[in-house]
Amino acid sequence: MIKSKALFRAFPPKDPYLIGVSGGRDSIALLHSLVDLGYKNLIICHLDHQMRGRSSATDARFVEKLAARYNVDFAIESANVRALAKKMSIETAAREARYSFFAKVAKRRKCRTIFIAHHADDLVETFLINLFRGAGSTGLSGMREVTTRRVNDVDLTIVRPLLGVWRSDIDKYVRKRRLKFREDASNKNLAPLRNRIRRRIIPYLEKTLGRNIRQNIWRTATIMSEEENFFETLLPEKLSNLTALAVEPLRKMSLAVQRRMLHKWLRAADVADIGFDLVERVRALLDVTNRVAKTNLPQDRHVRRRAGQIFIEL
Amino acid sequence: MIKSKALFRAFPPKDPYLIGVSGGRDSIALLHSLVDLGYKNLIICHLDHQMRGRSSATDARFVEKLAARYNVDFAIESANVRALAKKMSIETAAREARYSFFAKVAKRRKCRTIFIAHHADDLVETFLINLFRGAGSTGLSGMREVTTRRVNDVDLTIVRPLLGVWRSDIDKYVRKRRLKFREDASNKNLAPLRNRIRRRIIPYLEKTLGRNIRQNIWRTATIMSEEENFFETLLPEKLSNLTALAVEPLRKMSLAVQRRMLHKWLRAADVADIGFDLVERVRALLDVTNRVAKTNLPQDRHVRRRAGQIFIEL
Repeated sequence: MIKSKALFRAFPPKDPYLIGVSGGRDSIALLHSLVDLGYKNLIICHLDHQMRGRSSATDARFVEKLAARYNVDFAIESANVRALAKKMSIETAAREARYSFFAKVAKRRKCRTIFIAHHADDLVETFLINLFRGAGSTGLSGMREVTTRRVNDVDLTIVRPLLGVWRSDIDKYVRKRRLKFREDASNKNLAPLRNRIRRRIIPYLEKTLGRNIRQNIWRTATIMSEEENFFETLLPEKLSNLTALAVEPLRKMSLAVQRRMLHKWLRAADVADIGFDLVERVRALLDVTNRVAKTNLPQDRHVRRRAGQIFIEL
Repeated sequence: MIKSKALFRAFPPKDPYLIGVSGGRDSIALLHSLVDLGYKNLIICHLDHQMRGRSSATDARFVEKLAARYNVDFAIESANVRALAKKMSIETAAREARYSFFAKVAKRRKCRTIFIAHHADDLVETFLINLFRGAGSTGLSGMREVTTRRVNDVDLTIVRPLLGVWRSDIDKYVRKRRLKFREDASNKNLAPLRNRIRRRIIPYLEKTLGRNIRQNIWRTATIMSEEENFFETLLPEKLSNLTALAVEPLRKMSLAVQRRMLHKWLRAADVADIGFDLVERVRALLDVTNRVAKTNLPQDRHVRRRAGQIFIEL
């Protein structure tokens, strides 16, 4: 199922890796195929989202047993996602909870790379979600085969070996090998927009424009990811220690680089939900003729321009 | 209707400009609003596509009279688009015929800038067409407010003042001022894909996801255009005299720049219909371990790699 030899070379099977396993079909297939390819030194990470009542505990036991059977390590934690979701959507809250759990295990086990079971349909859906939200290209690419993400001071390398594999192929893989799996809890947490895109928009596009439409969107999304990689080479590697940014050099950057620079800066400061509008509000501060020298951030923080710099204040 | 002051500054009303006028609603509205803004030195360019029988001649007379009424210049030519369309789609053939006509007038009148009436709905449709074709990001952006295009050795500057204006606003503008217009011939030449996107996909997206969906797609498309501008600054300005490209420097470029460089090179050589697949085939030649050193182009031409260079042969 995993065809990318480059990935195999970049992440040799003998090394230790984390793997996110919900117990659903996708992560079970990923786990099985990695073990099959000779990855023995895995640490299964399972976050109990506490979203499915007693089923949540059954999911956890199911994954734990699987870890024992495959003879790989197992890390588990619980998070009250519904409580976390007061300030954001359930989907966002669940994702944030997972990543902070992954970062914790990564630190404890001294292993910074995690395999995630996102597949080609996830990629296409995420691309369309970002497009329909008007996220702009920074957000459009969304998922890359290999990417890094800084979570609670831990630099996680996220690897998605299934990004080129369709859900239907995963289905076949699972059926052929008679793999057991649990109903995926995350399907219950689907944001309404993702749900409509998966169940209505994509089928309608296929009906109206033909079967290859998903493949074509996938191709565009993948090219755009490669372009994101290019833009990243233009940005400073670490921004986390910068509390302030000088305005003048920023103003000289082209628009595309400027936006990504500000996006990265806000992200490094752990600002949640950095959308296009927020970046544009911060960008407006770079105009020194603009009398407004302050813009609000979530959680009662703000960005201020003073003495030729912008910085984040509580 | 035209709100962009920057455009107004960049293209002062006292200078001479070409304007493409089919006689349809959009171009009539553009013409009227430019004259209204004080653009007096216009040269109306009307191409008779010979697609509508006797109506074509009536369209031409209609536009000619309008030119007289507005007291602006008028240039007309006929092209047998149906005959030209043997090797390409009607929509592509019509576009190619228009641009080569525009280039001819530009040369004759020593005026290199042309106003075109593309509007926000055109932008969104073109973006979706390219997305659904899997064109990759070079093609996704499609339309920009200001862009240059080399046609038959003439560098045309194409300006689209209505890219931020929706078709519904053009309708209102035309109704309010009781402007007469002709049924747009180009609507008859709509490619089936554009037709389905306009009449089925976009209405379905609006119904399923809400009214602001078009606005959001427009925003993404506009951001991506700005990124295209950035990429252009990384490419050599003129490529037209280069018959060959050295392979080594190309290989060192990032993927995103490499693709655009090859795209621009093929375009400078007047290669028609440069799609993603063609660029990828040429890109494959850069791999010197690849034993294939030749790939076909339309019209019996091909690209060959020899002695560390790639070049186009008849």
